[in-house]
Amino acid sequence: MNSATREKEGVIRYENGMIGEKTDLIVTEHPITIKINGEEFATLVCTPEYIEDMAVGYLASEGVIAGIDEIKNLWVQEEEGFVHAEVSRWSPLHRQLYSKRYVTSCCGASRQGFVFFNDAKTAKHLHDVPVELSFDDVFRLVKDMQEGAEIFSKTGGVHNAALCDRNGILLERMDIGRHNALDKLYGYCLKRDIPMNDKIIVFSGRISSEILLKVAKIGCGIILSKSAPTGLALELAENLGITAVGFVRGSSCNVYTYPQRIIECRRD
Amino acid sequence: MNSATREKEGVIRYENGMIGEKTDLIVTEHPITIKINGEEFATLVCTPEYIEDMAVGYLASEGVIAGIDEIKNLWVQEEEGFVHAEVSRWSPLHRQLYSKRYVTSCCGASRQGFVFFNDAKTAKHLHDVPVELSFDDVFRLVKDMQEGAEIFSKTGGVHNAALCDRNGILLERMDIGRHNALDKLYGYCLKRDIPMNDKIIVFSGRISSEILLKVAKIGCGIILSKSAPTGLALELAENLGITAVGFVRGSSCNVYTYPQRIIECRRD
Repeated sequence: MNSATREKEGVIRYENGMIGEKTDLIVTEHPITIKINGEEFATLVCTPEYIEDMAVGYLASEGVIAGIDEIKNLWVQEEEGFVHAEVSRWSPLHRQLYSKRYVTSCCGASRQGFVFFNDAKTAKHLHDVPVELSFDDVFRLVKDMQEGAEIFSKTGGVHNAALCDRNGILLERMDIGRHNALDKLYGYCLKRDIPMNDKIIVFSGRISSEILLKVAKIGCGIILSKSAPTGLALELAENLGITAVGFVRGSSCNVYTYPQRIIECRRD
Repeated sequence: MNSATREKEGVIRYENGMIGEKTDLIVTEHPITIKINGEEFATLVCTPEYIEDMAVGYLASEGVIAGIDEIKNLWVQEEEGFVHAEVSRWSPLHRQLYSKRYVTSCCGASRQGFVFFNDAKTAKHLHDVPVELSFDDVFRLVKDMQEGAEIFSKTGGVHNAALCDRNGILLERMDIGRHNALDKLYGYCLKRDIPMNDKIIVFSGRISSEILLKVAKIGCGIILSKSAPTGLALELAENLGITAVGFVRGSSCNVYTYPQRIIECRRD
């Protein structure tokens, strides 16, 4: 079993003019190569926890599978760093389109903000999802996520993602890779058929277009972060119907899109 | 000309019980697709500044070119988001190996810590580079980099990277993508034939294996960061001869590898 952290001895610590040696807790990185029907598909460098969930979430978010029933078999060689997936409906055409750019040279940037084919295929539209929060919920959920982020507080080296409902955190995952933490949540829920459209994602990092797309693929209508969003992420949030709340710090925050899901922002 | 930031109107600001509207400055994300000899190679989502430098740095760090003279022609269609590169020595075999995993199923993790073929091919060994710093230099360079990070302080949404010598910052670049900021430095220096092995990189984010590899490809022997390193990054730093200094905050820091390049750590 690989561990999420390891000790590094002999680290030189300099502090206010004093030099000493100490042992430091370091977050590990572990390469996992996903093979689909025997063929190498992608290598993720990740924190070695919940690898099966991560692989399932990754296959779904990349559009390799449309649902969990399309995985015929999946097994993990953890030490060697391989996940073997047997899936139905996997075609060479799909392989070719994977990570290809969505827009073509003649039309410039696409109106909807998609960059890659597989994103356009797998991102869900979430305009009508049954989820709402108060500002107090926003502050409480972000605070709860940060307090649960134990490995981060020990090593400073990971991203945290939490799946929540209004009452609190349901599931929290961390990874050195931004996406992986979200894929671990997604895979867990897919395997258990847990509905996502009434849930909220709390994320420790910036709301980039990639993170926003991952939230859309998972199917959550609200993302909360203590950090900033990017322009493309907000364009996608507008088009896909996602409420993006950034700079959640203490008792202040910015609501960038779909404020009507925040109860105090409604004008009725 | 695309801009690195744009204004977003109608952002709802909630602060200590008060709801208001404001205009927020948001960092932009712009997809750039690099075509090599007419064929789509990769799409980078980036901050639209110094795109030519970024493309040159990317091609070198991915091993597509071994030197700047292998680029026969390169032009940027900025609005459309394309970079067209004509390079010599580009082969289908290379294309096939690109992003393939370096280790095979029989041998587990490689001793040197490489994950991808192109990394093993392009990372430089830097055991004998002529670069050294004092702890005071370390703190000053990190402070200077942070003070120069204007877009970050306005938007909270970018990574910063600076190329330095002992005397101060020579070049500073930012990007929403961690790698892109470093590729922008690399491309600039390649185009001008600036030697890198006596330089230092200061980076705003964690020292992950990807970032450490990028520093090795650029050819700098020291990386400084206010954040944490990962285990795989330190393994690579050991093997490639790079001094990794993390948690640089105020007047304290941790030296993880090759402390002999920090003057006060020498035992002679």
